[in-house]
Amino acid sequence: MAADGGAATLSPAGISNSRLDENIENKVKESHRIDSLNLLIFLILLTMTVLTIWLFKHRRLRFVHETGLGILYGLIVGVIIRYTSTTEQKLWQNFTLPEESPFNFSHPPDNIHLEVSLFSDMANKTQLITQEYLYSFKGLVYNAESTEIEDKATFDPEIFFNVLLPPIIFHAGYSMKRRHFFRNFGAIVTFAFLGTAVSCMIVGGILYGFTRLMVTYSSLWKQWGLTNFGLTDCLFFGALISATDPVTILAIFHDLNVDVDLYALVFGESVLNDAVAIVLAGAVEKYSDVRATGISDAVDYKAVLESLGNFLGIFCGAFAIGSFMGCITALLTKYTQIRDYPLLETTLFFLMSYSTFLTAESLSLTGIVAVLFCGICQAHYTYNNLSQESKVRTKQLFELLNFLAENFVFIYIGVAIFTFNRHRWDPGFIFAALLAIIVGRGLNVYPLSFLLNLGRKNKIPMNFQHMMMFSGLRGAIAFALAIRNTLTPARELMFTTTLLIVILTVILCGGFTTQMLQWLRIRVGVEDESEAQNFQAVRSAINKQKRYQTMSDAQSNGASNQGGDTGDAIATASGQSNLNMTTSPTDAAPPPMRIQESEKAWLVMKWYKFDQKFMKPLLTHARPPLTETLPACCGRFAMFLTTEQQLAQAEPGRSDDSDEDMIIDENELTYGADNNSEILDGETGRKGTLESMIDDGDLGLGVDRRDHRMQPTRILIPGIGGDDV
Amino acid sequence: MAADGGAATLSPAGISNSRLDENIENKVKESHRIDSLNLLIFLILLTMTVLTIWLFKHRRLRFVHETGLGILYGLIVGVIIRYTSTTEQKLWQNFTLPEESPFNFSHPPDNIHLEVSLFSDMANKTQLITQEYLYSFKGLVYNAESTEIEDKATFDPEIFFNVLLPPIIFHAGYSMKRRHFFRNFGAIVTFAFLGTAVSCMIVGGILYGFTRLMVTYSSLWKQWGLTNFGLTDCLFFGALISATDPVTILAIFHDLNVDVDLYALVFGESVLNDAVAIVLAGAVEKYSDVRATGISDAVDYKAVLESLGNFLGIFCGAFAIGSFMGCITALLTKYTQIRDYPLLETTLFFLMSYSTFLTAESLSLTGIVAVLFCGICQAHYTYNNLSQESKVRTKQLFELLNFLAENFVFIYIGVAIFTFNRHRWDPGFIFAALLAIIVGRGLNVYPLSFLLNLGRKNKIPMNFQHMMMFSGLRGAIAFALAIRNTLTPARELMFTTTLLIVILTVILCGGFTTQMLQWLRIRVGVEDESEAQNFQAVRSAINKQKRYQTMSDAQSNGASNQGGDTGDAIATASGQSNLNMTTSPTDAAPPPMRIQESEKAWLVMKWYKFDQKFMKPLLTHARPPLTETLPACCGRFAMFLTTEQQLAQAEPGRSDDSDEDMIIDENELTYGADNNSEILDGETGRKGTLESMIDDGDLGLGVDRRDHRMQPTRILIPGIGGDDV
Repeated sequence: MAADGGAATLSPAGISNSRLDENIENKVKESHRIDSLNLLIFLILLTMTVLTIWLFKHRRLRFVHETGLGILYGLIVGVIIRYTSTTEQKLWQNFTLPEESPFNFSHPPDNIHLEVSLFSDMANKTQLITQEYLYSFKGLVYNAESTEIEDKATFDPEIFFNVLLPPIIFHAGYSMKRRHFFRNFGAIVTFAFLGTAVSCMIVGGILYGFTRLMVTYSSLWKQWGLTNFGLTDCLFFGALISATDPVTILAIFHDLNVDVDLYALVFGESVLNDAVAIVLAGAVEKYSDVRATGISDAVDYKAVLESLGNFLGIFCGAFAIGSFMGCITALLTKYTQIRDYPLLETTLFFLMSYSTFLTAESLSLTGIVAVLFCGICQAHYTYNNLSQESKVRTKQLFELLNFLAENFVFIYIGVAIFTFNRHRWDPGFIFAALLAIIVGRGLNVYPLSFLLNLGRKNKIPMNFQHMMMFSGLRGAIAFALAIRNTLTPARELMFTTTLLIVILTVILCGGFTTQMLQWLRIRVGVEDESEAQNFQAVRSAINKQKRYQTMSDAQSNGASNQGGDTGDAIATASGQSNLNMTTSPTDAAPPPMRIQESEKAWLVMKWYKFDQKFMKPLLTHARPPLTETLPACCGRFAMFLTTEQQLAQAEPGRSDDSDEDMIIDENELTYGADNNSEILDGETGRKGTLESMIDDGDLGLGVDRRDHRMQPTRILIPGIGGDDV
Repeated sequence: MAADGGAATLSPAGISNSRLDENIENKVKESHRIDSLNLLIFLILLTMTVLTIWLFKHRRLRFVHETGLGILYGLIVGVIIRYTSTTEQKLWQNFTLPEESPFNFSHPPDNIHLEVSLFSDMANKTQLITQEYLYSFKGLVYNAESTEIEDKATFDPEIFFNVLLPPIIFHAGYSMKRRHFFRNFGAIVTFAFLGTAVSCMIVGGILYGFTRLMVTYSSLWKQWGLTNFGLTDCLFFGALISATDPVTILAIFHDLNVDVDLYALVFGESVLNDAVAIVLAGAVEKYSDVRATGISDAVDYKAVLESLGNFLGIFCGAFAIGSFMGCITALLTKYTQIRDYPLLETTLFFLMSYSTFLTAESLSLTGIVAVLFCGICQAHYTYNNLSQESKVRTKQLFELLNFLAENFVFIYIGVAIFTFNRHRWDPGFIFAALLAIIVGRGLNVYPLSFLLNLGRKNKIPMNFQHMMMFSGLRGAIAFALAIRNTLTPARELMFTTTLLIVILTVILCGGFTTQMLQWLRIRVGVEDESEAQNFQAVRSAINKQKRYQTMSDAQSNGASNQGGDTGDAIATASGQSNLNMTTSPTDAAPPPMRIQESEKAWLVMKWYKFDQKFMKPLLTHARPPLTETLPACCGRFAMFLTTEQQLAQAEPGRSDDSDEDMIIDENELTYGADNNSEILDGETGRKGTLESMIDDGDLGLGVDRRDHRMQPTRILIPGIGGDDV
């Protein structure tokens, strides 16, 4: 044995470098250990956040919102990491690119191959061999002093865009209350598109003025090499900082059951404007590329047009992909019987939704926008085809993913303030940016509301406008756009500023939302009328699926009967429940918002009819079947696309649908001045001051209450397993 | 404006390199696009797998198991990627480490800083500036010809260990049928520890003999620098290849309701031996480190002892951390009222479980082992404290994650055969390895079974032994261990060989399991008696939680009554359901397996009593409370640890528990020769040939059928939302 071993190491051709291999292996192991430790820190922070949220809920405290909590914990741990971590430095070697290299004067190489001379036998220092190692491009060198753990506590920025944002945005689309969204469609689109553009221009303009001053007079800026901080950089910052965040405010709105139209306006605006801001930021970058032949800041109108086209192209492309993938999923779930296997069905749903994101990204479009529209389509069509189990599963899954991702982002924002080691703090720029976003928000909300009110029957009252102004806090999207590229000094400045703005607005605006609602006398405790309909929908879904359920007939009937009763009960209850609540009923109420048929935009009505007649019958099991709506010449084709289930449905139209989001009943509840003084005081009626309302509700988890009702409450059904004897 | 712009670029101190920034930005974007495309490929493959699985189930086909399907799809796409991808090569630059560098003769530097000379203004080629770029260490250079997409289609190996394996292993622990597991505890531990060690030694030994031949005679091995492929390398390979995979076989066993004891043996062995193999592989590596002062292959007994200590230390450490974190979660869920908020509860559960993995990894222990025992603890204690909603949520969540991760791994195995560009194919080594694992498996199963049978009352019959021999297919763990380090030629050879062995065994053994069961006349269609108990458990859980449920009283009663009936019904049914099924009842039946009280190991009984008296009362709401079991002197302390809920429980002991996994009733069902000829032929009885059994069941999704039963079947309960008026 010993001889063999000797032969192995003395073999002349052998590059016996077991010690060296060991070095590499240890390097890999140590790096893995630090990765784990790093991720563990964030998990512990998340756990602490979860427990603190629970404690706050349980003790009915409400100092700070959960996103604020995440940031605060992040800040604390960031400080700890920064000031305690060992200063064990990474070891590096300097090289200069030789003059004859083809890479000189163009761009740095992607990889470096390094030849290292080594002894094959360390003990005897004999047998010189060479090994070639691979090194890959990382970016500019900034601060060689950074320690290993600090380096690691900053994640790859791509993680935010590829892993954390998609579930947040998808969940926004999937759980969107489309009824109210479409009722205010015109206003939302105006705010999201025109408003974001206005905000971007104004913020960009103000900062451009400011940067001209700095470039000329600030020695710090010269030292930082920021003299080329031009108009397009300012506009890029304007675009990224114009993405308002729905998380914090909406969680509070949701808890307090704030006025549904205000909710829809704020939610719709913030969701769509994320998408707009992302595409806008891309378009500004494109503009700077196109314009780059002339270095001057003069506006190049051709480039503006080109980047406008780019903007529209990307937005529409992403919209098309999102809708297309959503429809494909609907078709797959409609025409296969995959609903018999809920695990497969849920997996398919998840895979298709994430594929949407990746498809859009692979085509250089914007995945976030695609995934938003995919979410809306999934909710509008696919949801109706899912088995009851998958409905609950998908809702819960994305709720959980959304919760984890959101909190992770906010914790990371807190940590990054201290651990990111290329911050560029410029108090002047931060102050200017804060001022600019306030001005930009003001010139977005008030003038557009005024213009919209000219055409709206249900005006947006002033207190709503103030609230929208106040709701303009910045969050995950702005952060993700800023962190995506921090390779240049200008981008570093933007990143630092964005981080501070996010923290300030989330903690301040988030913390004072309740006070602001109270101060502006905005009605809270408005029962959402759509919930009743959702319940009807679930009931009819149960009826529809009777034949697919594996439970025994007798029990199935029992369950659905019970379901039916319940649904009716709720429908009745909600008829009485749409009461108004002001903090003091005797105060002057805000102007009433009256929803009427004529309110719906012409385009929305057109689309609605098309959707009812063709899209829903094609993509879901809803009535009327295509055999009735398509012209006679397509009879065969229509027959092919219509399922038995669709034809077998007894009840026509309405009640079969799980999201009658655009229909507004004749008996639509008109809540306003006339109902205002009535406060239901029955045994189940909710009443009391704003404070008690807050204490009653969730503390703002963004939990969709419908989910709670959809929870399994009767579990024991014999004979479902399929293998009973 | 133009003047300002001009000032910006002409500013003397400005390093105006906007073109350069653009280059970097484009580089980042392109890399992102390829990342997305790459992940998209895998998602599409997963989607195709899901759809094909559904189709197979639907059409009742059964050519190949789902894991085999994943591999096949992976192989196809791997071929496509390999032979169609553009050959756009990465650009690199060669450097030689200067002689005076401190890194020469020791190890390569972690980072390289590269100075590049560039023109600040590309158009005019003026103003030479230098930029410093960062490059980070990647590993040895092997094949400079690899294209970008191929490079990307190989993921970071750490992903497998940190993202994909934990949910698979946790799910195995969390969904383990502990009742049968503990009933066969002695045999399982023997197979897992002793068996894996035996297998590792034998495979290592055979391959060592083979490699001595190759090292001496093979010119290819000399050319590859494999002359130092020594005993520890062989043992390392022996350890990694000894991890048998539970996925494929068990899915089939589950579908066919194969004999519970065989199921428990195969499941328990494969789950525990994953853990053992991982730690064993680490210990062998450690041994080679310690022993490295002497290069000879002579066994260094001190080093052996040291690495044995290392093995035990790591295993026990990981076990301790897993159990500790599981208990912490149980305490958190018991003593907080977090169950009132199921989303928070599920999040906490998820975070604690993944933290377990990371904690163990951060301490240089084995996360996989920790997460396995954490899963068992979570199921044993925490599960009882969870709200009904979270019970369902956590089960479903980990089921989904497990399904996705498993299929991803198998698809990746298929793809990697073609896209991994540092394969070392040596047919001789592959053949020797295959032979070695067959011999190793044989010398593991048969002698150990013989020894175990000497002490067992319910002998392990020969057909079970043959089946265990056949069940030794290799999967995700072996793959993950092999891919974790492919930095040296020896490791590359191991990786390639492992990949092939996994593919061969999964496709061959997986495909012929059903035939093998039939051929060995192993009973299938055995109703699992533990399910009845699970149902009782759920019922009592409902009773327990009555006061926490927000449903109206009347309905709650209705539900639990119904639940009660159901539970009883099942309990009764299962009394009759433990029938045997052979393909032809007249054939000679396999020897009976009789389970008796005395079967339980002494240690297991001791632990069981301790668990019932102290652990469960401390960690769950189960009776008897600690106030009764702790000595009087600890009265205050015991009172503090006992919840109101615990004291308020009417029913004592047994039926309150959701996992009476170690109790075996007096009326324990003795299935064996006496029952063998009875085949229940009632209206609900399952009967028929093996083929019909297969067609009836799932095709092997690993779906826990209990989950189906736990699905929400009655959804509409008025007044649960908490905000009804």
